[in-house]
Amino acid sequence: MTEPLRPELSRPSTPMLDRVAGPADLKGLGDAALRRLADEVRAEVISVVSETGGHLGSSLGVVELTVAIHAVFNTPLDKLIFDVGHQCYPHKILTGRRDRMRTLRQGGGLSGFTKRSESEFDPFGAAHSSTSISAALGFAVGRDMGQPVGDTIAVIGDGAITAGMAYEALNHAGHLGKRLFVILNDNDMSIAPPVGAMSRYLAGLHAPGPLVALKAAAEGFEAALPGPLRDGARRARQLVTGLPGGATLFEELGFSYIGPVDGHDMPALLATLRAARARATGPVLIHAVTVKGKGYAPAENAADKGHGVNKFDPVSGVQAKAKSNAPSYTGVFGNALTDEAGRDPRIVAVTAAMPSGTGLDIMAKRFASRVFDVGIAEQHGVTFAAGMAAAGLRPFCAIYSTFLQRGYDQIVHDVALQGLPVRFAIDRAGLVGADGATHAGAFDIGFLSALPGFTVMAAGDEAELVHMVATAVAHDQGPIAFRFPRGEGVGVDLPARGVPLEIGRGRVLREGTDVALLSFGAHLHEALRAADILAEEGISATVADARFAKPLDTALIAQLVRHHAALVTVEQGAMGGFGAMVLQWLAGAGLLDGGLAIRTLTLPDRFIEQASPAAMYADAGLTAEDIAAQARTALARGRIMPRRGGLRVV
Amino acid sequence: MTEPLRPELSRPSTPMLDRVAGPADLKGLGDAALRRLADEVRAEVISVVSETGGHLGSSLGVVELTVAIHAVFNTPLDKLIFDVGHQCYPHKILTGRRDRMRTLRQGGGLSGFTKRSESEFDPFGAAHSSTSISAALGFAVGRDMGQPVGDTIAVIGDGAITAGMAYEALNHAGHLGKRLFVILNDNDMSIAPPVGAMSRYLAGLHAPGPLVALKAAAEGFEAALPGPLRDGARRARQLVTGLPGGATLFEELGFSYIGPVDGHDMPALLATLRAARARATGPVLIHAVTVKGKGYAPAENAADKGHGVNKFDPVSGVQAKAKSNAPSYTGVFGNALTDEAGRDPRIVAVTAAMPSGTGLDIMAKRFASRVFDVGIAEQHGVTFAAGMAAAGLRPFCAIYSTFLQRGYDQIVHDVALQGLPVRFAIDRAGLVGADGATHAGAFDIGFLSALPGFTVMAAGDEAELVHMVATAVAHDQGPIAFRFPRGEGVGVDLPARGVPLEIGRGRVLREGTDVALLSFGAHLHEALRAADILAEEGISATVADARFAKPLDTALIAQLVRHHAALVTVEQGAMGGFGAMVLQWLAGAGLLDGGLAIRTLTLPDRFIEQASPAAMYADAGLTAEDIAAQARTALARGRIMPRRGGLRVV
Repeated sequence: MTEPLRPELSRPSTPMLDRVAGPADLKGLGDAALRRLADEVRAEVISVVSETGGHLGSSLGVVELTVAIHAVFNTPLDKLIFDVGHQCYPHKILTGRRDRMRTLRQGGGLSGFTKRSESEFDPFGAAHSSTSISAALGFAVGRDMGQPVGDTIAVIGDGAITAGMAYEALNHAGHLGKRLFVILNDNDMSIAPPVGAMSRYLAGLHAPGPLVALKAAAEGFEAALPGPLRDGARRARQLVTGLPGGATLFEELGFSYIGPVDGHDMPALLATLRAARARATGPVLIHAVTVKGKGYAPAENAADKGHGVNKFDPVSGVQAKAKSNAPSYTGVFGNALTDEAGRDPRIVAVTAAMPSGTGLDIMAKRFASRVFDVGIAEQHGVTFAAGMAAAGLRPFCAIYSTFLQRGYDQIVHDVALQGLPVRFAIDRAGLVGADGATHAGAFDIGFLSALPGFTVMAAGDEAELVHMVATAVAHDQGPIAFRFPRGEGVGVDLPARGVPLEIGRGRVLREGTDVALLSFGAHLHEALRAADILAEEGISATVADARFAKPLDTALIAQLVRHHAALVTVEQGAMGGFGAMVLQWLAGAGLLDGGLAIRTLTLPDRFIEQASPAAMYADAGLTAEDIAAQARTALARGRIMPRRGGLRVV
Repeated sequence: MTEPLRPELSRPSTPMLDRVAGPADLKGLGDAALRRLADEVRAEVISVVSETGGHLGSSLGVVELTVAIHAVFNTPLDKLIFDVGHQCYPHKILTGRRDRMRTLRQGGGLSGFTKRSESEFDPFGAAHSSTSISAALGFAVGRDMGQPVGDTIAVIGDGAITAGMAYEALNHAGHLGKRLFVILNDNDMSIAPPVGAMSRYLAGLHAPGPLVALKAAAEGFEAALPGPLRDGARRARQLVTGLPGGATLFEELGFSYIGPVDGHDMPALLATLRAARARATGPVLIHAVTVKGKGYAPAENAADKGHGVNKFDPVSGVQAKAKSNAPSYTGVFGNALTDEAGRDPRIVAVTAAMPSGTGLDIMAKRFASRVFDVGIAEQHGVTFAAGMAAAGLRPFCAIYSTFLQRGYDQIVHDVALQGLPVRFAIDRAGLVGADGATHAGAFDIGFLSALPGFTVMAAGDEAELVHMVATAVAHDQGPIAFRFPRGEGVGVDLPARGVPLEIGRGRVLREGTDVALLSFGAHLHEALRAADILAEEGISATVADARFAKPLDTALIAQLVRHHAALVTVEQGAMGGFGAMVLQWLAGAGLLDGGLAIRTLTLPDRFIEQASPAAMYADAGLTAEDIAAQARTALARGRIMPRRGGLRVV
């Protein structure tokens, strides 16, 4: 694509939207005007995302819904909580952030998700899925205890509602019986097509016939509707449940169920929301059927419905391609695992609703029956993998670092305690860029290395990743994890086939005399660059790749300590991780007693806001120059030790 | 109670059971004999638990079910997985472990839960709830991929099935459609009465009429039944769903539903299981209605149905009372929070199905509407609390350390990232005794201290706990956690009212000159005893209570380093916790550069098996003598520093 010289000239005409400074301006508008406004919001979303990239399909799917909610409810006193937040662009446009939309997902710009610090219209931030009902119920309790809260509305997708957490919240909300609105945004898509019996069930709710209007769960709701809708509701109820008097799953959980309603039919949406708002005394689930990517053919026609897109030409929908010099870590992992799976029929893989994000789509193309998409269900996914391991298979759980937090107890209780050989492929380790702090893979090194019997690796480059996949395949002695970052590798040659690493053995890449830089993970490249910087100053640095945070290569560490005046550890993770493991071992071994100028570089003790990964690492104090600076400081303080013998070079 | 001199003389007569060496011996028995066997197993369970204490009620409730499953299925090739494992005593008695039953929950004895290392009849260990369906599905996949696995059967309670994880597993199992048996052991009890809409729903399934027999979900099942049961099944189906053709929630999730069946009616159980085993092609849910504590009046009549009992007199059911010298930490917490709640109407509390275990039952007696039992739903519970905090309330999440792992992502994503002031009251920190490794509170110090903006405290004694409750109430700046152990306090006087501590400020309890012992949490008492031991040897030890792992009292630590030749940290947690935080701060501050004899005592890098807490800490190398030994070693290696000025004593 070629960018127009002055993109603002090609922006859509939005006369209605131009007069909307905030949701209050929607209150005077009639239904027809709101429909026109929705059209303009849709055009604005397309225009914005064509310039910024982002979550296009989800946002296009909820344009009418967002307009209708803001027209009917009284935000920000009423608390509108979008689940995950992929779909919040129309909401941001309508709540005073239109002028900053073109900074979306960029350093210093608007978040791609809802965020409390960004607007009073974002009462609860999101990014990980399936939290909205819990939060909305918390607000409802606050309201009933006298806090300044009006109605609470959770907007949650049919993918997100399959997570156990959402079910727990529905179960509790149905039990408490407090007034609460859950709007099920059912587009029959998660990031990938949704998985599980629940999805089939939801599809069944609107499969029997056209979306005539809506089904009101209680006669009270039906009576409040205009005549035609009321008839439609009765008819829809019969279509849905097959028989008068039958109940949906949501009703069995204590909710009044209204729907399905066409989520792009503005009059029907408005009537439904008004009726629900007027009559609800307890929890209500409104089932809106939407189309992901609605109203923009290139998105509607895409396999992923335009879920996450790069900048694109708004006319053709053709996306700009990022220049790629090296394969992505994700792709390297997917290919390496697929190769291994071709040789070992016991290899199976688990993803929690992210087959393409994790690279398991590559394996699924060859071995579909051995790749399990469990849905947004990390808890189940981990224990399911543990069960497969107990049965004698070799399961790989491919879960992003940030989402692995969802399965932590299962990792401790079902995997580590039983010593079961589940392999964890941890993508998106470290800082991830545009998705910001909510998606940072910051804590896994610590929370896994604390577990007895775990083996924890991080790939120094994409070739190492191939070897770590082979290492994990071969490791039947207990759980093993390997982490690797988002994005492209550094461009090293890939081995034709991975070779299992010796467990707990690091490698020395460059031998020096003054300071040792001990890297764990993909900041290895920065450590090497730091050594270059130091070399220009006449400081000779050894650079080692620890490979293992657990078990530590204690022989290597002891050697580094013995032969250098200072030691700097580097990792793409929070404190309490690799550096902490090194320090606790050194302390226990008495190697700190006589003095050791050691610095452990980690992510700082604050959340790092979105920007490019490089900018985020600069913000975090983790550039090559930062590493060199720490080495200088440590050296200046450290003892000068005579070199005794050489270093083991791998 | 007085113990009989020779307890074996009072043991029940069990002629049938005496001939059962394992499940194979059940195969030749007729239905009537199996019923008699069940009676003997029940008598044996009562006899065993009267001597050992343990989970009586759950085990009594599944006697017939366990006998029937082992009679019908072919364990250990068929994989029988008990959820949670509270109910596994009959299973252990029938699977070759009868002779060791009276070592239950004791050091070196049988685990109170199922455990893979204990028996081939325990294919998947348990202790945390709601994992069984996931594991069973994993085994089913293994079978279908050629591993030596027969049928897979998960036995899960109506409390455990309300957890999101179980729902995720049902959803996935319904989607995959593999042959799998889930037996819902519905006794209308969790540890406390179960919570949530799901419980109400399950109760509704068997409320309309007597348990005539069972309901077979598919005609195929009904046809396989003996005539009378077949008729009963049709009748029950109508009672359950109201209308022919209606479906239960489980059927909507893709399961065939059979039931409800009386879980104490051996012929009905056997017929149901045989029919299900003969006909099932996909996932089947068998709904068995049982009575917790069945067949033993003192348990049936108890409020908790004899969930967890001490040793007792089998005739009267009167339990031995443990001698108590000091109030329990749990009770101190419950009372302190109730006091605070009396002064501050914004205080609310959340428990995940453990109102009495957490002490929140004390608060609920005075402020019932402000205590929320969310069910076995830590994920939801944490984010629900975050929502309440965002609404302006002051929520306390009272969750055991080991179960807090279930809500880790919610702590990171919904609480820490948003800086919301949720208060975490973390009971059962450290080693817990008879419940063993699965319930150890080992990892929370590390996994919370890694989070930006978190305040992490541990109570040095029960008076400190009262102050920490007050500190948490007053702390609206962000999330805050305080941990405390299971069991009794050390007997210090309790303050009439808690006083908020200064954030990040520790205290010095004893001033010495040679070595500093810096304790975080309830091992403070051991540190003081270690100082006594050292004093006898002429070594003068300072003892400080860090109170905070985050933020660290860096001024105190710097002072300790400056004025002592060695520093020993002590905590009731795994590596990567408090000691690691201290080391990383010391490294960054350059305080290791010149040498520091520091040792960080933590739980060792292995799981510690059940015993008394004292024996477990001895096993872990965390006695007062261990602390003293580390201090001696460090001192011997450390530099001798002149004392410069005094220490701040709080």
